[in-house]
This record gives sequence, structure tokens and C-alpha cells, in this order.
Amino acid sequence: MATAPLLQFQTFTSSPHVSFFQKLAQLKLDTFQLSDASQAISGFFELSTHADVPARFLVDDTAFGFDPSTSPDRAKHEWRVPGVLYNTNTLDAFKTIDKTALLDAARATVCEAIASDAPETLQYFVLVTFADLKSHTFWYRFAFPAVLPPSPYRVTSWAPATSAAWQPQPVALMQQLVDLREMTGDITTRNFPQHFMVDRALGTVLPLSATVADPAAVVFGLVDSSALPQHPGWPLRNYLAWIRRRFPAMTSVTLLLFRDAVHHWATVPPMVACKASIVATVEWSADDSVNAPKVVGWELNVQGKQGPRCMQLGNLMDPLQLAKTSVDLNLKLMRWRQLPSLDLDKIAATKCLLLGAGTLGCHTARNLLSWGFRHITFVDNSKVSHSNPVRQPLFEFGDVGKPKAETAAKALKRIFPLVQAEGHLLSIPMAGHAMSSSQVLEDTMHAYQSLEALIDGHDVIFLGTDSRESRWLPTVMAGAKRKLVINAALGFDSYLVMRHGIPDVVDLGCYFCNDIVSPSDSLSDRTLDQMCTVTRPGGAAIAGATAVELLVCLLHQPVSHSAPVTLDTTGGALSVVPHQIRGFLHSFSQVLVEGPAFPKCTACSAPVREAFVEDGWRLFASVCSSKTYLQDLTGLSALMASADALSFDGSDDSDDDALL
Amino acid sequence: MATAPLLQFQTFTSSPHVSFFQKLAQLKLDTFQLSDASQAISGFFELSTHADVPARFLVDDTAFGFDPSTSPDRAKHEWRVPGVLYNTNTLDAFKTIDKTALLDAARATVCEAIASDAPETLQYFVLVTFADLKSHTFWYRFAFPAVLPPSPYRVTSWAPATSAAWQPQPVALMQQLVDLREMTGDITTRNFPQHFMVDRALGTVLPLSATVADPAAVVFGLVDSSALPQHPGWPLRNYLAWIRRRFPAMTSVTLLLFRDAVHHWATVPPMVACKASIVATVEWSADDSVNAPKVVGWELNVQGKQGPRCMQLGNLMDPLQLAKTSVDLNLKLMRWRQLPSLDLDKIAATKCLLLGAGTLGCHTARNLLSWGFRHITFVDNSKVSHSNPVRQPLFEFGDVGKPKAETAAKALKRIFPLVQAEGHLLSIPMAGHAMSSSQVLEDTMHAYQSLEALIDGHDVIFLGTDSRESRWLPTVMAGAKRKLVINAALGFDSYLVMRHGIPDVVDLGCYFCNDIVSPSDSLSDRTLDQMCTVTRPGGAAIAGATAVELLVCLLHQPVSHSAPVTLDTTGGALSVVPHQIRGFLHSFSQVLVEGPAFPKCTACSAPVREAFVEDGWRLFASVCSSKTYLQDLTGLSALMASADALSFDGSDDSDDDALL
Repeated sequence: MATAPLLQFQTFTSSPHVSFFQKLAQLKLDTFQLSDASQAISGFFELSTHADVPARFLVDDTAFGFDPSTSPDRAKHEWRVPGVLYNTNTLDAFKTIDKTALLDAARATVCEAIASDAPETLQYFVLVTFADLKSHTFWYRFAFPAVLPPSPYRVTSWAPATSAAWQPQPVALMQQLVDLREMTGDITTRNFPQHFMVDRALGTVLPLSATVADPAAVVFGLVDSSALPQHPGWPLRNYLAWIRRRFPAMTSVTLLLFRDAVHHWATVPPMVACKASIVATVEWSADDSVNAPKVVGWELNVQGKQGPRCMQLGNLMDPLQLAKTSVDLNLKLMRWRQLPSLDLDKIAATKCLLLGAGTLGCHTARNLLSWGFRHITFVDNSKVSHSNPVRQPLFEFGDVGKPKAETAAKALKRIFPLVQAEGHLLSIPMAGHAMSSSQVLEDTMHAYQSLEALIDGHDVIFLGTDSRESRWLPTVMAGAKRKLVINAALGFDSYLVMRHGIPDVVDLGCYFCNDIVSPSDSLSDRTLDQMCTVTRPGGAAIAGATAVELLVCLLHQPVSHSAPVTLDTTGGALSVVPHQIRGFLHSFSQVLVEGPAFPKCTACSAPVREAFVEDGWRLFASVCSSKTYLQDLTGLSALMASADALSFDGSDDSDDDALL
Repeated sequence: MATAPLLQFQTFTSSPHVSFFQKLAQLKLDTFQLSDASQAISGFFELSTHADVPARFLVDDTAFGFDPSTSPDRAKHEWRVPGVLYNTNTLDAFKTIDKTALLDAARATVCEAIASDAPETLQYFVLVTFADLKSHTFWYRFAFPAVLPPSPYRVTSWAPATSAAWQPQPVALMQQLVDLREMTGDITTRNFPQHFMVDRALGTVLPLSATVADPAAVVFGLVDSSALPQHPGWPLRNYLAWIRRRFPAMTSVTLLLFRDAVHHWATVPPMVACKASIVATVEWSADDSVNAPKVVGWELNVQGKQGPRCMQLGNLMDPLQLAKTSVDLNLKLMRWRQLPSLDLDKIAATKCLLLGAGTLGCHTARNLLSWGFRHITFVDNSKVSHSNPVRQPLFEFGDVGKPKAETAAKALKRIFPLVQAEGHLLSIPMAGHAMSSSQVLEDTMHAYQSLEALIDGHDVIFLGTDSRESRWLPTVMAGAKRKLVINAALGFDSYLVMRHGIPDVVDLGCYFCNDIVSPSDSLSDRTLDQMCTVTRPGGAAIAGATAVELLVCLLHQPVSHSAPVTLDTTGGALSVVPHQIRGFLHSFSQVLVEGPAFPKCTACSAPVREAFVEDGWRLFASVCSSKTYLQDLTGLSALMASADALSFDGSDDSDDDALL
């Protein structure tokens, strides 16, 4: 007996799948966030099919909730093992986590299973991870806790099941096991248990919970993870501990180590399994105490030393997917501490139409991209000029001469290929500009229809063109269609960012509510500085950013763009929703302004909206052919007449900051 | 007499040179600005050398102040004509300018010359322009005012000067004229006058001012712009008017039309001129009154119709030069109305060092470029990651994996090729990070030296790195060297932009003046969101813009970066110069904060500066090897000890916004 060889076990080789880390990354980002509470997970082992193939322990994206109904084949060939995940928050925490304590905790779980007469599994695993989502690097360490016997086991016999001189016929037994695996019906019973007993006399497979009068009349069966010719797999350790706890009088046991060669199995299943499986006898010292067993099981690193393993997913991922994941990461991290309510799906789904792809449009688009907006459409009728690139952050010197809208859209795609960006070369029909020829009329009508279709197809309209009159028609159209309008405008060293009201819902003024004259041709007689939008460069960057921040706040209100003005700062980061933000670079200051809609407004008042709904094109054409049409329509003319009588002095047209 | 042919004149063909428009553009931008006051200018005509070559009237960059000493050759072959420029402010003004009134005004000038007995020139010209500097398009229209006789002149003889049957010998006369042209001495007299007389008997050249007893004894000489075989040039018109005013009894005159063939002239000058020149006799009706003469002279357009001509310079210019001109244009236009004191040369010469080429660095650089800064250097030690491009506006998806500093510099050059941008891959030595090996020590020392050299070579240091401790050494170095430091930092939805004080000059705090602990390693144990600088995207755009606006304000103070805090808004656009600007995205607000330097500051206090001046590297090494070194050095330790005794509760280290 003393000369019988020691029983040695093949360890598991952890084989976490990329999908596990992807799922972990997603959960960390979306669910766990800063929590490092332990998570119940599950892994699988399969039967090794060749002595050279390690006994793989698989963990994949099903680890956090495996549904066997979605992969019935898997349930035939893999055996589930419960485990626990400790995902640490920092690399330091990962490195310094108390591994002894974790194994102690796992020992309790294992011992509980050993103490059960009907354990589902005796195997268990521990996984410690640190997910560096920034670099797509995952640090991890597995433990497969196994009870150490006080003194080693010894193997007194070891032979293929085909050669075993015992009842029942091994092939018939194998057939039973294979049948178990092939059963239809309740999918959870489709596989056979990791451990089972075989009645030697009857040749029947019994569950561990069966009453056994004489353990010597039973063969103890085990699904063996090993394919090594001389060694069983790791799960046998805890199984032996269970046998010894269950039948304390025994000092030896006959084992059936069920093995299989899955890739041959389809041909003659029982015979293959029978040839691969092992019948062995193992014995131990009767003096051993199995109380308070010691547990081992930390996996070594790939160098065979104590230490963590690492998976660098960045190298494996599709670059586009990587870009998406990385960009999402930065956004989702906002939810961890600062903005739990951040609705990134809503942001990603919001379709933004940017009228004007100049200084304001480019800055706005950049900020939309940063915030996770994914549908961005530009409208512009001009080409990139030499002076544009330094101020319009979607253009380069090499873009000079190209159409702005299309070039801006292409730039967005170069920055983030997954954005849905497009550009339309389109002259926005301008109120007050005479349609001087039939060609102009036709072109304008075409542009009118294109603009309307674009507004219909988007959720938010940003006004960022370089004239007042080009903002009138979009204001009217979007107002009538109850689209959200965010208007940004620049003065020399000031800026205005505002949202338009929604008629009948939110009584807030639009861009034209402060005007008492119709928009008219302001472009024809301009000096050079008026042609060039002379502004301090910082204004556009700040206004573009502020416009997008305002939109994000609005999207997070219960009624989105119909939200009332809220200036209460106690409601959290996205709770303040002003009407207008006016900023002044010369004093580094910003004020919030609120103004109701003007009932005689040339753009958003009821008469204008009604005229638009009745026949929008006719309204527009009338505005172009008569300078007083809108003033008459809205009643402004009458107001001005009475105001004139009182020496009314309300015009602010002398303001240099023509767009504010 | 009635059968003699009518005298017809070859008009001038205006030939404005590109350099004229370039000069005009520059003057408009820098000097005239919004003024449309008339400007005295001058043009030149030369002798046409061939009948097929039009009589060109040249206007070039010397138009606004010709210095004959700089081009003596020119003074030999071109005759100067005074003129007046009306440069309009708008295209509309150009189109609608009152051309009749302009010609009337010119008639007065011409008539004044005719009334003079010694006119320098009888020719004059009017130029109306509109310079669309945005598109580099120049609209222009010339007039060469000429007095119309009441009835036409008639030519009674017309022959080459060589065949003339009159005294003196024409060749001898030509020799006199050519000698006049070749004279050395006072350069202004080097050429002969446009008009002169020749004493028939003596063969001598006389000025117009000479006393003439018998005009019939005189030949009236004129430099003739025409090379047509049968027609004199335009200047003869006013000359005839002068002759008739001066000698009212005359009804006919003998003319010497001096012509030349410049390209042959070098060979046998007098003979060539003699062969080309014309002696002609012209007569007119004695009944004519020359009072209140009518004046004509607007040049037709290239189609031969009334209308303006146009020069599109954009097509001719070097694209790089175009970019420079266009970019300068936008900046210079600010001086027209808003910022007359704007010192763009100072801005262009200011060398900016950006520490950190991430979100803040990229935004800052973009704004520097917009403002006309032309020396921008980046320092960064990292590579572009997948999440960067959407937030860092100098990177694209295709840049992922490239070093940030160099990539950012290249992007700036793609935007504006004339910028002097460079990137340095450099890890800024970080206070409180242990130098754990000799390699680390060596690398850090090298980085220390590189950083110091970079700070020495720049005027302004922007701090935009992603940790507190990486800002310490640059703060110490720049403070000791009295460089201007602009610090920008982001919280989740807030931002800070500040300038550091200058020790002993401006008592303002630095970034570390609010700290009561030394900067230490904050990078090793960070959760994912701390690693990723989770911020609302708008903050960086606003902070970057604000940082540059602050710098521009400082550069326009009399003492630049030593300027005291000024919050008085009455001093104009660049007069407010705060210390700190703190902004809050959640409330769309901004406040100005001012704080003095802290005498125990770990970065800018006297003990630290003195230790740096004595041995900067030793100071840095000490800070890295001892966590309390700085606190001991500055006296913070003692302060904290006494504070502890009083249950001092001043630490704000729990702030999530670690960088604010």
C-alpha cells in the first residue's frame, strides 16, 4: 500500500472569454459603477478531449446569468460551476486584495457543499478582477478552491473503463449517461450531474442523495475535467472530501472518471466515452481527520508563478468598436458619481440639425459629438474660405474651397466614424430678400421645401447662421412644428444662447420677440467688418459649448423641450434650465435672462403661425415681396403707429452687435 | 480747312498692379478702416512702344507715396500723374457713388492746372474702388478727366520728327531731351517734363513757364502716351486746353509728340526717339469759347461698356499667403470699431507653451490660433486614445496611438500652415512621485532639464495637465523665472481659469496657494472615473476659450502679465483683468475671484523660490523623496501642528473635483 503512487490532480486552466470582459466592462460602467460588492457568477468546465489540451475553465458573457434555453448544445457538453466575482475599483485594490480572506470565504462555501447530502456541485471558483476600461486592460486572478487532505491519496488501480473487471457492463452504463445528456424535455436536466453513483449490482446511475447501505457496493462517478492518462482533474479533490465526509468509515473508493472525446462523440458515443473514461481505486489513511480542512487553489500566472493574469482587449477589438466603447466610457462614467440620471440613449437618439456650418456650427457640432449625440446634420450654402479654419474647428487649410456643410460632416466622421453626419448645400430662404427673377424664385422654393423636410426629420434645430433674416424661416417652421430650437448668436465680445418657447406650451420668447421690425435684407450694404462677423474668438467656443449644455439640460427634463424655466440649483447638475444665457467676454460674466413670447412677434406669434400652417410658402413669398407684410399681419404696424405718436424710442437697431 | 481730319485721342488703359490692391488692402485694414475719405495717390504713364500696345496707365503699391530715389530707372521712363482715390466701404456705395460729382470735382483740379502758367502736369485721374478683402475681390473704376473742346480739333499735318522741315535739327533736339532723362544729380529732375516748349530758332527746350513773345515761334512739346501711327494720346487734350488758355489768340499750333521705343532705346537713343516722335499741326475754330469746359474721362469696362472693372486677387495669390492675409483680416477688423488698441504684433510674437495636449490643451491651442498667436508648443507624454478625438479638437480617429504633443502640433499646421507649432513627448516630473530606480531618476532629470529649457524659451505657460502634482514643478519654475502662467482646471461641471501672481510684483495666488498639503502621488490609486477626467464636455471648451481671452487681456495691459486685478468695465473691451474665473455649468454662471499669494504656499512662497534658485533639481528631488519636505520648508508643518491643536478643519481634500 505504501508503494502505491500518489494521486495528483490536473488543475483547471482558466480561460475567460473576451465576451466575459466585455460584459464585465458594460456592467461596471452601467450597473456596478463604483460598487465593488461581490457578484455571484458562474463558469463552466468542459471535458478535455486530449491529453495535450489543458482542462479549461470557461467564463464568458453568460457568467452573470446563464440561460440554458438559449444554448442547449452547451448544456450537453459543459458543466456549470458557481463562483464569486470581486471586481475591484482600482489597480491598487486588485493587487493588495486579501487573497487569504477570499479563499477562507470560499472554503466556507465549499464545506457547505461537502456537508450536503445532495450537492449540485462541489466545485466553486473565485475570480478577482480589475477592469481598466480606459486602456481596455483586464487584470484577473482565478481560484478553484479545493480541500487538501491531511495526507496524500494513493492510487491503487487505474485503467480504462473498457477494461474494468466489474459489473455492470461499462458500455451499458455509458449509454445511460449519454442518454441522460441527450434527453429532451426539461432542459436543466438534460445533462447528467457532475457527481453520481452507480449501483454495481444493478448498473444503474444514482444521484448522490440516494440511500446507500454499503458504499463498497457503489462506484462513485465523476465528470472528469482531465484527459491526462495518469491523473484525474481538479474536481475530484472536493468529491473525495465529500465521500469521506459521507462515508467516514471508508478508506478506499472505486471511482468512475467519466471522460469523453467530444469531437468523436457523434459517431459512437457510448464506446468513445467508455474508452476514454477511467475506473480507478483510491485509498487514504484512516487516521486522517477531515475537520477544518485546508483549502488551496489560486491559479498561477502564465509564467507559472504566483501573480495575476492580464488580458489586453484593445489589441483584439475592432478599432471602430474600440472607439465606440471608449467614447461611451467617458460618457457613462458621468453616471457613476455625478449624473446617475444621465440618459445617454436619449442623447444618442436625438437628431440635431445645425443651420450654419460656420464658427458657431462647428463649435456646436464638436460639443454635440463630445456629449454623445450621434445624428448631426449641417446646412450651409458657402465654401470654406482661407480665414475659416483657424476659427471653425472642423476645417483645415486643405479644405479651402470645399462646401462647408459636407466638409464639416466629413470631418465629424473622421473624428468619430460611427457618427451619422451629413451636410446639405442649401441657401436658407431669407425673409426680406426680394426674389428678383423666376430662377431665384424657383431656387428659393426648392430650398424652402428642402429646409422644411430637414426640419421635419430632426428633433432639435440649432440656429447659427450669420444673419438675422436667415433665422426667420427656420424659426417659423420649427415653431409651427413644435421642434426645439436652440439659438446662438455672437456680438463682438458677447454671446447669446437661448431656446425658443413652444407656442401654447412654454411661454418663452423666440429670437425675434424683441424686434419691432420685420427681418429684412441686412446683407447687401455691409462694410467689411460687418461682412466678416468680427467677434472675439472666444465667444463662439463658449456659445457653442453652452448651447449644447443647454440642450442636454432640456433633454433631461421630464417634458424635455417643453420644460419651464427652472433656476433652482438644488435639483442637481442638469436641473437648471434657463431661457437665455447672455455672456460678456469683456467682463467675464454671464447672466440668465427670461422673456415671454411677444404676442406681435414677427416669427412666433399666433398670426404668423396660422399663416404658416395655412400656406407656408405663400407667407414666405409675401414677406419677401412686402416689407410691411409681417408688421401688418402681426399688428406691429398699428403698434408702431401709436408708438410713433408717443415719440416711442424703442428701436435698438443701432446696436453694433447685429446678431444679438 | 474743313477737310482736315478730326483729331482723335487714344484713351489710357488703366493697368492697376496687384501690388496696388495689396497695399490698398493693407491700408484699408490697418489705417483707413471704416473711413471712406478721399486719398491723394499717384499713377504713372509710360510711353507705349508699339501701336498694338495700349497706352497703359499704371497704379501700383507706390501710389500712396512714391519715392523716386528707390527706383531711379522708373523715373527715366514713366511720368507721374496725381490722382484721387475714393475707396468705398460697401459694394453698394461703390455701385451708387455719384460719378458726375466726382468728375466735377476732378474738373476743378484740371482747370486749376490749366490756369497755371507752370503746371507740373495737366493730367489727373480719379479712382473709385471697393476692396472686398474677404473674397480678395477688388472693384474699381478709373477716370482720366479731359477737357472737351466746344468743337473738334483738326489735324493739318502729321509726320515723323525725322522728316520735319523745321529747325532745329530734330536729332539734336531729341539728344537734349534724352540728356535730360539721363541726367544725374537731383533725381526729381532726372526726367523731362510732360510738357515743354522748343524755341524753333535756337532749338532749345524751354519750360512752360518761359516767357514767349511769339507763340508761333515755338513748338509745343508733349510726352505722348500713344504709339498709334495717326493718333496722339489722351494727355494732349488738356495740353491743348492749356495752350489755348495761355495763348488765346492762337488758332493753330505745331506740336512735338515725343515718343520712344524703350526696348530699342539703349542702342541709339536719339535716333530711335526721333524716328518714333511726331511733329503735327493742329487747328481749331477761333470762335470757340473755352470757359466752363466740359470734362469727360470715365474708363469703360473690359467689355467696352460703362461699368466697373474687377480684379479677383484670390486666384493669383499664393494659397499660403492668402491664408495669412485672410486670417489677419478677421483679426485686424476688430480694430476698426471695437478694439483700436489691439496689438496683433504682440500677440503674434508671444510664445505659448502648453503643458498637456489633452482636452484643455487642444481647446486652448485652437483659441490661441483664432486669436492670432503663432508660436505654440505642446508638451505631453501620452498617446491619442480612442476616446480622445471627440473631446480633444486637434485629433481624429486616425490619430489614435500617435503621440499627442506632436500630433497636436501637426494638426495646428494642417489648420494654419504658417503657425510655428511643435510637440514634445515629455513626462513632466511630478512632485511626490518617488524615483524608484536609477533609470527613473535619470529619465526624470532629463525631463526636468527639458522642461526648464522649454519654459525659458516661452513667454506664457499654460497649465492643462490632468493631475495636480504635474503642475507643481512648472509652477515653481515659471514663478521663479517670472513667466506668465495661465492655469485651467476642470471639475465635473465647473472650471477654473486663473493667472498666477508674479512674486514681488503682483500679489496674487498661484494654483497651490489654497493647499495646505504638498502635492503628492494622486495617480496610483484611482478608480476608473478618476482616471478618465470625467467632466461635462462643455467645461473644457469654455475654459480653453476663457484662458486665451484672459491672456489677451493681460497682453494689452501696460505691464502685461504683471498687471494688477482690474474689474472696472468702463475701460473698454480688454480692460477687465481678473485673477481667477470660476464657472459653473450646472447654473450657467461665472464668478470672478481674487486671492493673494499664500506666504507658506508649497509652490510660490519665498522659501520654495529661494530653494529653487539655489538648486532646483535638489529641491525637486527632496520633494519626491520626502512627503513633508515642502511642508517643513514653507512652515506649513508648524502651521498644521498648531492648527491640529485647535481642531483645525481646513482640508478640502474630499472634494471630488480634484483639479479645482
